[in-house]
Amino acid sequence: MQKIPRGKAVINEVGLRDGLQSINLILPTDKKLEWIHDAYEAGMREMEVGSFVPPKLMPQLADTAELVAYAKTLPELFVSVLVPNLKGAERAIASGADLMILPISASHEHSLANVRKSPDEMITELARIKEAKEAAGSGILIEAGIGTAFGCTLQGNVENSEVLRLMKAALEVGADRVSMADTVGYADPAMVRDLFGQAVELAGDKCWRAHFHDTRGLALANAYAALEVGITRFDASLAGIGGCPHAPGASGNVASEDLAFMLSSMGYETKVDITKLLTLRQKLANWLKGEQVHGTLWKAGLPKTFHSKRQLADV
Amino acid sequence: MQKIPRGKAVINEVGLRDGLQSINLILPTDKKLEWIHDAYEAGMREMEVGSFVPPKLMPQLADTAELVAYAKTLPELFVSVLVPNLKGAERAIASGADLMILPISASHEHSLANVRKSPDEMITELARIKEAKEAAGSGILIEAGIGTAFGCTLQGNVENSEVLRLMKAALEVGADRVSMADTVGYADPAMVRDLFGQAVELAGDKCWRAHFHDTRGLALANAYAALEVGITRFDASLAGIGGCPHAPGASGNVASEDLAFMLSSMGYETKVDITKLLTLRQKLANWLKGEQVHGTLWKAGLPKTFHSKRQLADV
Repeated sequence: MQKIPRGKAVINEVGLRDGLQSINLILPTDKKLEWIHDAYEAGMREMEVGSFVPPKLMPQLADTAELVAYAKTLPELFVSVLVPNLKGAERAIASGADLMILPISASHEHSLANVRKSPDEMITELARIKEAKEAAGSGILIEAGIGTAFGCTLQGNVENSEVLRLMKAALEVGADRVSMADTVGYADPAMVRDLFGQAVELAGDKCWRAHFHDTRGLALANAYAALEVGITRFDASLAGIGGCPHAPGASGNVASEDLAFMLSSMGYETKVDITKLLTLRQKLANWLKGEQVHGTLWKAGLPKTFHSKRQLADV
Repeated sequence: MQKIPRGKAVINEVGLRDGLQSINLILPTDKKLEWIHDAYEAGMREMEVGSFVPPKLMPQLADTAELVAYAKTLPELFVSVLVPNLKGAERAIASGADLMILPISASHEHSLANVRKSPDEMITELARIKEAKEAAGSGILIEAGIGTAFGCTLQGNVENSEVLRLMKAALEVGADRVSMADTVGYADPAMVRDLFGQAVELAGDKCWRAHFHDTRGLALANAYAALEVGITRFDASLAGIGGCPHAPGASGNVASEDLAFMLSSMGYETKVDITKLLTLRQKLANWLKGEQVHGTLWKAGLPKTFHSKRQLADV
């Protein structure tokens, strides 16, 4: 079976942020450090390690600064954090992270529920963050994460035109990159091709990353659809943790290990050692005992043909 | 969000055959009749209701003739059965089913393990079945189901050329249609586009159907990849039941309800009422308590935007 080399694809592990923020259990810092260490050993080179939100609101992520500090000691690891506002951005700048992501919900209702600001007020916040970064002489990158891009459990429909308008506005006020998230698992492959296709036309190389939730089982199909329009960077959570408060029991983010398998099997170079990742996944599932974990590959393991196929792909 | 109508897609419910044969529990005939009834009420118009194998080998499917007889009373329901050999085919001809599927494993080793015949001996068997059908003056259709088309847990690699050779041979000796199955969940979307693309080139309209297992989470991504090369007919099992004896605990067939959601959301007309299908799924999950069931949509339900989108798609 001759495979064609397909270039690189990058998985950004967001379980430490998007995954753990949806889980009641507070994972101890030493376990989180072990997670970062083991994921790095398994070849992961991008991680979103936490969020600079008030610790009272989200005690699960209170150790974000410590995690950034450790992650930055690992050579070539690209470290990002989420920031909900200027105050969080100031902490991100001080932390030494490589990138901060500001969530901008394309759903007006979700934006108000999530950050108590309208999408346009978040664009203004982004401009302030850009100023603060420049005042600090920091090289940290700013990513605008356009959320609920495919629909919203509160508001319902979200128009593509509104998503693209916000994307354009974010780039104009100083975002270095933009990404799009199917926050609540409403996207299908046709919608993904359509909207990511338009976003790539608008933002070119700055349309950086796709963030899919597996709420309705379509996350991998959606990732494949995004690949088809040139997106090769994806957020994912180990064991598929994460979720949405409006869909209790539903799957969370696309599982890192399943996505790594799909990408590698298709011939994309991810540098991820899936066997090591599955070992870490098992460790994490034990740490999170009693919480919802997801994913499929771990049950069956890699295909017998996987390594021979990869060698062909590497030719 | 303007959706483009994309034509029809057909889901063939195979849970009664491929699903139940992998489960130890023997589902009583009255429950199976209820399943057929409710699936029909939910809009399903194709079902593989059982297999004409010796009842001693597979007591779970011993009532296949009775199920065919009932299913054939439902207007416009297309009823198929699996047959492993000429003897089974004679029972299928007598049953009044619309179609019989003969499994031809492209993996030599799997074929021997599964039906104790080599792939080429199965082609000879197909020729005999064709003769028996003509001798009986029966209008039943014959489908050659090329299994392990993307690799095999026993043999490892399966060459595309071998799959296509068997497909051509099956058509030459009298198969009305051919389908391809990823029996053990080794396929990825790139492999699917590649092999189904070649199969459609070879067999045209006679390349009828795709059968994907979700063993490693890629079944829906693979279904989407098959859609892209013109395949619009899929096997699926309610609650994703089914499996492979070589991957205990792994997911089974792609879940009918998840596939119906993906297809409908993308704008394909399936005629399936997903809400009714989810109700039946819940019933089945209760009947099968203690057995492995799968699927994702049932946990979160349909998106709030689903019906408004479908109306747009119907314009």
